[in-house]
Amino acid sequence: MTAIDPLVNLETTMKHAALLAALTLTVLSAQTNDPAPRFTKDNELLRPTNYREWIYLTSGLGMSYGIRPAGADAPAFDNVFVHPSAYKAFLATGKWPDKTMFILEIRSSASHGSINKAGHFQTDLVAIDAAVKDESRFKDKWGYFAFNSGGSLRDSAKPFAADSACNACHEKNAAVENTFVQFYPTLLDVARAKHTLNPSFVAAQASEGASK
Amino acid sequence: MTAIDPLVNLETTMKHAALLAALTLTVLSAQTNDPAPRFTKDNELLRPTNYREWIYLTSGLGMSYGIRPAGADAPAFDNVFVHPSAYKAFLATGKWPDKTMFILEIRSSASHGSINKAGHFQTDLVAIDAAVKDESRFKDKWGYFAFNSGGSLRDSAKPFAADSACNACHEKNAAVENTFVQFYPTLLDVARAKHTLNPSFVAAQASEGASK
Repeated sequence: MTAIDPLVNLETTMKHAALLAALTLTVLSAQTNDPAPRFTKDNELLRPTNYREWIYLTSGLGMSYGIRPAGADAPAFDNVFVHPSAYKAFLATGKWPDKTMFILEIRSSASHGSINKAGHFQTDLVAIDAAVKDESRFKDKWGYFAFNSGGSLRDSAKPFAADSACNACHEKNAAVENTFVQFYPTLLDVARAKHTLNPSFVAAQASEGASK
Repeated sequence: MTAIDPLVNLETTMKHAALLAALTLTVLSAQTNDPAPRFTKDNELLRPTNYREWIYLTSGLGMSYGIRPAGADAPAFDNVFVHPSAYKAFLATGKWPDKTMFILEIRSSASHGSINKAGHFQTDLVAIDAAVKDESRFKDKWGYFAFNSGGSLRDSAKPFAADSACNACHEKNAAVENTFVQFYPTLLDVARAKHTLNPSFVAAQASEGASK
């Protein structure tokens, strides 16, 4: 190193530092998987393709409170995912940051296949729905989307109207903000600890006589 | 900058570059969540506490092929998670890298709660099991673990014996290596595309007359 002009060496080192910084940002960006929901010029939400790498919150089978009617013989599974950055914010605060995005994935179920003889396991994709918190875009902060149309999956979807059944049901019954945290077992404990349960939900639980 | 000795400046820049490199490694390490399974001196697997931030593969309800008997009135959900680095390797190759780790989480189900009136949703944690691929540690490459003991959750667990029911059933019936990829809908397509399905599984499917 003593044979090299220190100024040239300084320049090289700074270039390396800049390259390393750029790499760091690239890695971080790739690992956070585009945190903000993306919209078209026509206000349609682009369907995220990497939601299976987000944070899993829960699954239900044949649940009846909406979204899809449950078939008696072949009930559908629903799987809920949320963006990792929103999940981390919720763990810290018990609330959802602006630009939070949920995906509700619906899958068919089967009972007999391979070595399975009873109960239900998941099979084909049926539908993809989304919920987005965007305080400047939606009247009640939250918008709801269904990417299925006529049996096929669309790349983007318009939000349901502000007075849709989705909006009304989430507004009325959700445990935290407009989200059904009552069905996300790991987050329900966080909301209790952070005291962020909606008063309406707490009152409804009390009147149900639920012990939880 | 012209007033500063370039050699001093070079040293400072190199320190910054080293700091940035260290930060990069810290961030990457934190985000990959300790890829390798950790064992005690006594060959017990340490129970990972962050598996809910791993990649979700599937859920079943009341499935009968093992692990836990399904209750007719209150069947249990099983949720399967795999470490992100193993998931990425599987997407690329259709095979599991050495040190792959799965978590099988068992949760109770409920049908009536909040606005839900039918079907099943997930509630309390019941059990945590694990499967680990470690070619140098286990005779058949894969080891199986149950962290529950007498109603409580242990911080570490010994592997089942190599001739356990877990080992035998996975060895005999798994779709890819010793893993039940037949029940992971997104990965089954990957295994088909990469031609990594076990011949025994393909033969069993053919004799079932399954169309898949």
